[in-house]
Amino acid sequence: MTEASSSHEVLGALAYHQLSTFGRLAADAELAPDLGQRIQLTHLAAARVAGLDRVLDRLAATGADAEAAVAPYLHLLDDFDARTEPSTWWERLLKDYVASGIADDVWRHLAAGLDEPMRGLVLDVTDDPGYGDLVVAAITQAGARDPKLAARLALWGRRLVGEALGAAQRLVGDHQAIGALLAAGAEPGTDAAALQSRLFAALTAEHTRRMDRMGLTA
Amino acid sequence: MTEASSSHEVLGALAYHQLSTFGRLAADAELAPDLGQRIQLTHLAAARVAGLDRVLDRLAATGADAEAAVAPYLHLLDDFDARTEPSTWWERLLKDYVASGIADDVWRHLAAGLDEPMRGLVLDVTDDPGYGDLVVAAITQAGARDPKLAARLALWGRRLVGEALGAAQRLVGDHQAIGALLAAGAEPGTDAAALQSRLFAALTAEHTRRMDRMGLTA
Repeated sequence: MTEASSSHEVLGALAYHQLSTFGRLAADAELAPDLGQRIQLTHLAAARVAGLDRVLDRLAATGADAEAAVAPYLHLLDDFDARTEPSTWWERLLKDYVASGIADDVWRHLAAGLDEPMRGLVLDVTDDPGYGDLVVAAITQAGARDPKLAARLALWGRRLVGEALGAAQRLVGDHQAIGALLAAGAEPGTDAAALQSRLFAALTAEHTRRMDRMGLTA
Repeated sequence: MTEASSSHEVLGALAYHQLSTFGRLAADAELAPDLGQRIQLTHLAAARVAGLDRVLDRLAATGADAEAAVAPYLHLLDDFDARTEPSTWWERLLKDYVASGIADDVWRHLAAGLDEPMRGLVLDVTDDPGYGDLVVAAITQAGARDPKLAARLALWGRRLVGEALGAAQRLVGDHQAIGALLAAGAEPGTDAAALQSRLFAALTAEHTRRMDRMGLTA
């Protein structure tokens, strides 16, 4: 695999991450029960478009066709979404936060296998400018008022993390250029199974920290 | 009514227009059958957030509370949306284009009753940076391939314009500060009924031009 083709594949996956996170944030904004939250979520969605633009600019600079580069990833989260249909606003908010949080974390791990300027690009566009604070504040407050809701959301969070790890597994397992980044970021000779289990352990630990911040038992 | 309170009311309505148009564009992006269209719609949605920010900055500069200013308009389009539930992608695309096109047109008419810098702000944030071109190209092409679709969409467009004019009527009729802008933009002494029928005639003519561009009979 040439450097150029692997870079298309990485940029395509990163563009898809921005595009799909935009869609989650925009849908959350539309359904937010509170106007202040709606405005904040709208801003967070727009930040992902700014990130998307940076990725698309870089794709264009490499001479790649953006649509062809993104296409292989378009159905990456179909299974995840089909298996985690939220039934309330709180389930939706937690789901989208867990999904985008884990996806951002995956990318920060993959960044270790990239050189500059790609590494900086990945770290920049996956940097959360306030989504976590919004969700943590909203869910902590709601959970404190209603312990049954907190218990249900804790359970929901455990279901979400399992499904999200499945999607992460498909990303690094089914797409050679992405899997190669994991290897490039580790000591030479580490085998694929060890790389994946290390990634999953890190993702799970980060998820647990996020759930803790909301007062939910992971 | 003081100048300041009327300006809160106008800015609140304008902020809501940006916020709701963002929501339509983002939802269209998510459902777009074509990745290139999805990316374009995502950019158009982000442009509305940039417009929203300019309106919110101006609201903040007047010392107004953004949420209080937007709140009176939050249900302005509920009736319109309930009566025009799209059943296909094409119905959705045409609906959102007609709805945002008519809303932008209303604002450009209202701008005549405003002084600078409000007038320029309204004209800037309602300036379509490419939505029309995207929808016209997509619907013209689809209609040329499938004349039955074109006939159905022409009918759908007639239903949409009627419902959208109803929403425009509620905006200028139920919100005194907005109705006052219509009067301020016309010759002194023009009565409210004449102002509204003139607005509706202009909106209908602009809608007909948009439908013509798509090869649909308005």
